[in-house]
Amino acid sequence: MHTASLSLDTTKLLEQIQTLGAIGADPAAGGRTRIALSDDEKAGRDQVAQWMRDLQLDVRVNRIGNLFGILHAATAAGDERPLMIGSHIDTVRNAGALDGCYGVLAGLAVVRAYRAAGVLPARAIMIGAFTNEEGVRFQPDMMGSLVYAGGLSVEEALDATGTDGARLGDELARIGYAGDMEPGSIVPHEYLELHIEQGPVLEAEGQLIGVVENLQGISWQRLTIHGTANHAGTTPTRLRHDAGYAAAAIIAFLREGVVAAAPETTLATTGTLRFEPDVVNVIPRKATFTVDLRDPDEGRLQAAEKRLADFLSEIAEREGVQVETERLVRFKPVTFDAGLADEIQASAKRFGFAHRRMTSGAGHDAQMIARIAPAAMIFVPSREGISHNPREHTDDDQLIQGAQVLLDVVQRRLAKAV
Amino acid sequence: MHTASLSLDTTKLLEQIQTLGAIGADPAAGGRTRIALSDDEKAGRDQVAQWMRDLQLDVRVNRIGNLFGILHAATAAGDERPLMIGSHIDTVRNAGALDGCYGVLAGLAVVRAYRAAGVLPARAIMIGAFTNEEGVRFQPDMMGSLVYAGGLSVEEALDATGTDGARLGDELARIGYAGDMEPGSIVPHEYLELHIEQGPVLEAEGQLIGVVENLQGISWQRLTIHGTANHAGTTPTRLRHDAGYAAAAIIAFLREGVVAAAPETTLATTGTLRFEPDVVNVIPRKATFTVDLRDPDEGRLQAAEKRLADFLSEIAEREGVQVETERLVRFKPVTFDAGLADEIQASAKRFGFAHRRMTSGAGHDAQMIARIAPAAMIFVPSREGISHNPREHTDDDQLIQGAQVLLDVVQRRLAKAV
Repeated sequence: MHTASLSLDTTKLLEQIQTLGAIGADPAAGGRTRIALSDDEKAGRDQVAQWMRDLQLDVRVNRIGNLFGILHAATAAGDERPLMIGSHIDTVRNAGALDGCYGVLAGLAVVRAYRAAGVLPARAIMIGAFTNEEGVRFQPDMMGSLVYAGGLSVEEALDATGTDGARLGDELARIGYAGDMEPGSIVPHEYLELHIEQGPVLEAEGQLIGVVENLQGISWQRLTIHGTANHAGTTPTRLRHDAGYAAAAIIAFLREGVVAAAPETTLATTGTLRFEPDVVNVIPRKATFTVDLRDPDEGRLQAAEKRLADFLSEIAEREGVQVETERLVRFKPVTFDAGLADEIQASAKRFGFAHRRMTSGAGHDAQMIARIAPAAMIFVPSREGISHNPREHTDDDQLIQGAQVLLDVVQRRLAKAV
Repeated sequence: MHTASLSLDTTKLLEQIQTLGAIGADPAAGGRTRIALSDDEKAGRDQVAQWMRDLQLDVRVNRIGNLFGILHAATAAGDERPLMIGSHIDTVRNAGALDGCYGVLAGLAVVRAYRAAGVLPARAIMIGAFTNEEGVRFQPDMMGSLVYAGGLSVEEALDATGTDGARLGDELARIGYAGDMEPGSIVPHEYLELHIEQGPVLEAEGQLIGVVENLQGISWQRLTIHGTANHAGTTPTRLRHDAGYAAAAIIAFLREGVVAAAPETTLATTGTLRFEPDVVNVIPRKATFTVDLRDPDEGRLQAAEKRLADFLSEIAEREGVQVETERLVRFKPVTFDAGLADEIQASAKRFGFAHRRMTSGAGHDAQMIARIAPAAMIFVPSREGISHNPREHTDDDQLIQGAQVLLDVVQRRLAKAV
């Protein structure tokens, strides 16, 4: 079977991106919010599952709630190790419509091309939407794919407690997505993920396709500074144990002492911070905040963690505060499958699309599945590099061209005998 | 009339501190909460008014709700310009029992000493509990005394909107303390306020009595940093407009660049801080925080404000963020009446109490009344400097000795002919 004749229904793909993007929409603040296992995310899952059924896919849900649609192969042998195309449909608060959803819906578009041509693939194609990629409500993020790859037990994941106190397993059952399939029971032959870059590099360089060959290591910690609450007007500076100042000094050091040591590769971000008691004229007794460190090189990432740890000791000593650290997430940098990356690059070249090999700055489900199967990613540009924001945008042409590369790579891979 | 024979009912004073401190008590979180013009604060007012009536004082409430009890003088001439002893009985959340209440109840103890001896003073003694000293619910703080001294119109104060959206004037009427007396219509001959230090200095130096000769200037601002939200993993540092980092750099600079320029006198505190959207892997688009600057010297306070303002321009330029500043409170430093301070010092010396002249780090009603009459304050130690906290504590002996100094100073002042 030769599938050079397969073609995308580009209208349908763009239409489904719009439709899914309208679920959980927040007209006041902009964007849409479908936090993992919320009612709005359930509505998103129901929509995607319906589209899978419309394509007569074999719809499966596993114990961690990953949602799959399988286009079975022409032969039983072809069904054993499917080619998997995946991403996620949960979102951050007030998100764009593309992060994750684009990859899942482009996967459906690939399957639709096979259906339209009336051909069955030599190897099954399995489209996956992984549970809780964003990690807004439940930690860790990329949970569904992590569990799928055996990096976290189902039981531990189901017992995760949300920021709202809810248990993940209970929420999964509540929304009707506690499946019975064992995560990882189907090992993909290869894994592809098409995603918006969520960064400014492709746009800045005028490239259309990012051939993603590796992914940064990620280190997340929660830091809690314990100081002493006291009156802002009566406590001499030398007698203060100011948890708020200590937190600020650490966050400033992340930029000035950690990032500054490797400014081209190390990234540091504090996205959340709270003071207690949070009163104008009371020195904070407690400050709680997160530190997100990234680097594509494990040695440099460890050096960044070490610089931070040394500074924590220094500030604890100097300010007379206690610093408590809690590891939230730690992933080593990931190297994707070179053969698969070459295949993506060759496809972009055939289409005449400007392209470059690159590092993924964000974490993706692909990094988890890379533990159990050859994996690689395809990026398309993000306007102004903006993501996790209602203004997230990729031109329709670019979305279509990215999906064309995906379909082309799938056809090439499936043209080989199983 | 010589009043050397007047003596305090110390048991009654300590008992009333306990009784008032039980109103609004929060057994779960500790301490008591009597936010201005709440039901619990009304209950506190009712109790104090009852105690004033028990002493057969002339109980008066003015239009801003200040509660007074007047012990009339032996002569009509003596009634014209009373000696005023004041403070407040509203509290912060989960407060100690002493802040403010001690001064009001010690005033009642002074009057009780006159009543017990059956003598009328040469000059009326007017005990005042000023409305909304703490400023938790309604801004500005020290409102009742500010209005009394003519620094804010009654109408403007009555129109203040609370953090809960309530109008101050409506709340005052609701709890039955919208009086008809015009604030400031009785101008005191002098004003005394006995208060816990709310700081660690007296305890650290082993002193019993603080002769308060001046009070720090206070500058409160709310700062809002407007940056750009973006993905923490994909946005190169050079392309970031990180509102969270900018806020942290400013807070660190307050210590390292503003306080460091006058470390013995300038204080800087950031008590509240919020990030938006407050998500681990999103660069904050917005950071909102307060800056509390204090110095007993107006020139140095202005210099501190200038250093901060210069740094705000610098960081806005460097990080590509917008910085919005809003003035919340600005009070110049206050110098108390030197003669009254000398009188307090002489009294402490006569009793043999260890004492020192000092600056008040906190704001007090005395600073407002100092605009219209000679004023001074007496401090007693706060254990570990802790205040605005259920653990606020002063030993009973120290409370009694502070009240003895107050009674002694009142007697000395009233010994002079009217």
